Amino acid sequence: MPLFDKIALVGIGLIGSSLARVIRREGLAGHIAVATRSASTLKRAEELGLGDSYLADLGEAVADADLVIVSVPVGSSGKVAEEIAPRLKKGAIVTDVGSTKRSVIAQMQPHIPAGVHFIPGHPLAGTEKSGPDAGFAELFENRWCIFTPLPGTDPAALEKLSEFWRRCGSNIDTMDPEHHDMVLAIVSHLPHIIAYNIVGTADDLETVTKSEVIKYAASGFRDFTRLAASDPTMWRDVCLHNKDAILEMLARFSEDLALLQRAIRWGEGEKLFEIFTRTRGVRRSIIEAGQEVDVPDFGRQAVEHPPR
Amino acid sequence: MPLFDKIALVGIGLIGSSLARVIRREGLAGHIAVATRSASTLKRAEELGLGDSYLADLGEAVADADLVIVSVPVGSSGKVAEEIAPRLKKGAIVTDVGSTKRSVIAQMQPHIPAGVHFIPGHPLAGTEKSGPDAGFAELFENRWCIFTPLPGTDPAALEKLSEFWRRCGSNIDTMDPEHHDMVLAIVSHLPHIIAYNIVGTADDLETVTKSEVIKYAASGFRDFTRLAASDPTMWRDVCLHNKDAILEMLARFSEDLALLQRAIRWGEGEKLFEIFTRTRGVRRSIIEAGQEVDVPDFGRQAVEHPPR
Repeated sequence: MPLFDKIALVGIGLIGSSLARVIRREGLAGHIAVATRSASTLKRAEELGLGDSYLADLGEAVADADLVIVSVPVGSSGKVAEEIAPRLKKGAIVTDVGSTKRSVIAQMQPHIPAGVHFIPGHPLAGTEKSGPDAGFAELFENRWCIFTPLPGTDPAALEKLSEFWRRCGSNIDTMDPEHHDMVLAIVSHLPHIIAYNIVGTADDLETVTKSEVIKYAASGFRDFTRLAASDPTMWRDVCLHNKDAILEMLARFSEDLALLQRAIRWGEGEKLFEIFTRTRGVRRSIIEAGQEVDVPDFGRQAVEHPPR
Repeated sequence: MPLFDKIALVGIGLIGSSLARVIRREGLAGHIAVATRSASTLKRAEELGLGDSYLADLGEAVADADLVIVSVPVGSSGKVAEEIAPRLKKGAIVTDVGSTKRSVIAQMQPHIPAGVHFIPGHPLAGTEKSGPDAGFAELFENRWCIFTPLPGTDPAALEKLSEFWRRCGSNIDTMDPEHHDMVLAIVSHLPHIIAYNIVGTADDLETVTKSEVIKYAASGFRDFTRLAASDPTMWRDVCLHNKDAILEMLARFSEDLALLQRAIRWGEGEKLFEIFTRTRGVRRSIIEAGQEVDVPDFGRQAVEHPPR
């Protein structure tokens, strides 16, 4: 028996379309309604057979749904909530997948009618690709899904949503929205911003040509280009909607970089060695935590030199 | 018939041991002499069967060698050159694999006797692992090897060394040492320094615990930890020996970051979108140039979800 009679997916990009695929594979819904305002994306979702119904009218899609998952850039959360609110079924669960939580709550909560369970969520999963073609059913496997439940959240609804994400392959954590936004600022937002920045710096040089940067990218630079190839709309919205935590992390990063720069300028070999040594264990810990592959070069070798 | 009767590998870490393996596989030498001053590394190289002879005395190793490849941290280049110089055979080729070229030339050239061909080189290849166990024969495949030949370099010697690297799988480029150091500062040195720095910043937070950083690393942070797990001795030496070019690139990076930070502070969505858009094509170009794998997530999925 499916976990939900009807699930409505509002937004069908990388995350939404991965959800559609894993919901189908695991039989988690009797009916999958796919909704997006983009006519071309909706058409593509239908070609891919991601759902059971396809609707440009978000309100129509969520009517009768037991679970509504909003997977849109965080800046659109408020508008979407306003649009779907009048059609939400009593007892339905509404969740989202946004990378910032304080802002999403502030945008969505005022619209959610009484009797509907609004549980903000964030699956920490993704790739540098976007759109309905980029999704895959394994995306959430062994990844964390963080809930930031509001005071008074119904324990049964929270447990049912947790069960949904566990069946998608994820592990569940809960924290308050403020802490979530601070944690994500360092583990996700700052890395993306730094990656975008360094790729931009390389693009602007006069002494080194663009073709040289590309040709010799394998010596380190290419590692940054993956994050810097992520969806610009999503990341613009993240920067606008988690400003305080991001600025705090940027300030710390810049302070540390000034210290490192000074050590280089003054030829302080021992200090450099110390800085370059303490970071080595971090990767080992991430591998041990099952959040990174245990092979050199991110496993590129498995792609470049597959075992014969 | 082997390309060289005897090749001496001075230093047998990631690069040296990868060379040993590909030289053996391709039959490029009649005899491989392995030399390092570290007794434990030499012992391990012998256990791995990387060479035909194993010597703690670098001079003894290079005697009668037709090709000598120095693969040591760039800060040790001068000392190694001084030690091997008296034993170098007339007509021998001496090369290195260092990531900085002006400094290596300044350190080594004064010691090289007349009649020996000193051709500075730099294979742009590596992983975050180090030591003789980390090497593999495919490391140089489809990677660039850059020579920075000195004025008056013998064309026949340069061609023979080029042929050697081609047989190791590499493509050859030549440029002057100043330009090399500038190019590498942006494509390799700055990315490593930034990666070390961001991992350090994350390690220092009070509001977010270390275990949270590790747990949630898959949302972006883990991409930086690969470069930040690289050999600290190597990177200390690179920073000390390519100071000017690195400081120039760091200054540009920081300027650009200040601009981006300001756009975040003032909520300039259009500017952010523009910055985040221009970088997307860079990755596509690197993939098209054959310097990156054409799969999401660096191909981690091939490791995590191997095709059944």
